[in-house]
Amino acid sequence: MTGSLTIAGLGPGNDALVTPEVSAALAAATDVVGYAPYVARVPLRNGLMLHPSDNRVELQRASEALRLAAEGRQVVVVSSGDPGVFAMASAVFEALEQAPQWRELPIRVLPGVTAMLAAAARAGAPLGHDFCAINLSDNLKPWAVIEKRLRLAAEVDFAIAMYNPRSASRPEGFGRALAVLKEAGCGKRLVIFACAVSAPDERIETVTLNEATPEMADMRTLVIVGNSQTRRVGRWVYAPRQAR
Amino acid sequence: MTGSLTIAGLGPGNDALVTPEVSAALAAATDVVGYAPYVARVPLRNGLMLHPSDNRVELQRASEALRLAAEGRQVVVVSSGDPGVFAMASAVFEALEQAPQWRELPIRVLPGVTAMLAAAARAGAPLGHDFCAINLSDNLKPWAVIEKRLRLAAEVDFAIAMYNPRSASRPEGFGRALAVLKEAGCGKRLVIFACAVSAPDERIETVTLNEATPEMADMRTLVIVGNSQTRRVGRWVYAPRQAR
Repeated sequence: MTGSLTIAGLGPGNDALVTPEVSAALAAATDVVGYAPYVARVPLRNGLMLHPSDNRVELQRASEALRLAAEGRQVVVVSSGDPGVFAMASAVFEALEQAPQWRELPIRVLPGVTAMLAAAARAGAPLGHDFCAINLSDNLKPWAVIEKRLRLAAEVDFAIAMYNPRSASRPEGFGRALAVLKEAGCGKRLVIFACAVSAPDERIETVTLNEATPEMADMRTLVIVGNSQTRRVGRWVYAPRQAR
Repeated sequence: MTGSLTIAGLGPGNDALVTPEVSAALAAATDVVGYAPYVARVPLRNGLMLHPSDNRVELQRASEALRLAAEGRQVVVVSSGDPGVFAMASAVFEALEQAPQWRELPIRVLPGVTAMLAAAARAGAPLGHDFCAINLSDNLKPWAVIEKRLRLAAEVDFAIAMYNPRSASRPEGFGRALAVLKEAGCGKRLVIFACAVSAPDERIETVTLNEATPEMADMRTLVIVGNSQTRRVGRWVYAPRQAR
């Protein structure tokens, strides 16, 4: 049987946010490859081989998945959220670029509900006007690039979704990001801290940027900085459709 | 019985991309409100009231939905893609701001797979690095704002997802957007035209920005302009995780 590789997004955490397309791919898989906490979300069954791995080994993981598919396995690489947003899809294509012998393998990418959409939905509609998504990890890009993107995003009044704002190995960046945005005049903007969205311990908190502190974010937090028009109505936070 | 309002995203078109959460909300609804082509995607059943409406009446539609919920109905407002991205969620909160008497209604926003994620998945992983999403419609903002956002997005090397690039009533904007990006030095960037993503007549085409013409987009097209590092591998297009 010909092997195949499917790169699938599991959504932010709750099974009610997994698309039927992804569920069908998992039901047909012989092998599931991914970061251990995401592999742990896959329903177990007889004959399904799980290949959990550590964080920060994306390229090795991608190569392993391609190799398994080349051996004839039906492989699903799982990501949290959407696999194309700061997740495994780019890593698989990087691995494919380095390994021309695997170019003819059948590959599919199955989209999912990425964290910023789930976080926005819980808060209201902070992404209802133009916005950007920035990965705050400087493992793969210089910090100066991140700062420039934040400054110009503020200047053109994008809402800003921040992925990976803070981790044990990068405790400083998020505080600097908040400082950059304050300097850019965004102190009164609303900031949403969405922690563990759709999981049982979900926590959503909205403050102004002036009130925000680095400790409000951790590894499981998605941060959305509203644009200058973003406002509250009752318990909701939303961006009006109209720009001033 | 207490009424409720749920704002739900149907995903880009294929039922395999509708989350179980949204399917459950539709199964429990007494009334479905939305733009006619999206209401037409909801499975019919006895006793379900459909309230289809025209394009460009978002605020009236939102008020109607709130009024029905206030009367005790279980109302679902449907959007294509994700309801929080250039769709109905912001309109509902705007309507709510104008109508304090409805502030206590139970409201939920259910996220969905927005068009750019589905388009990106079909093309490969063009949103694997930082990116922005811009609505090219100038119905609700001045064209100058759109141009400035495009120029600065090019300057900070975001991939750019363009929603609503072109319609019968706005035939000129998309050509101007392409011209702005050419002037900004993006002529060699890859541009993905994703038409009717996940529908039977889906069509995905990738060219360089210099080769792109306004006629390649229509009302059902989502356009993704890659960043400066976005490249092809085999039939795929992806953004490397690492910034140069």
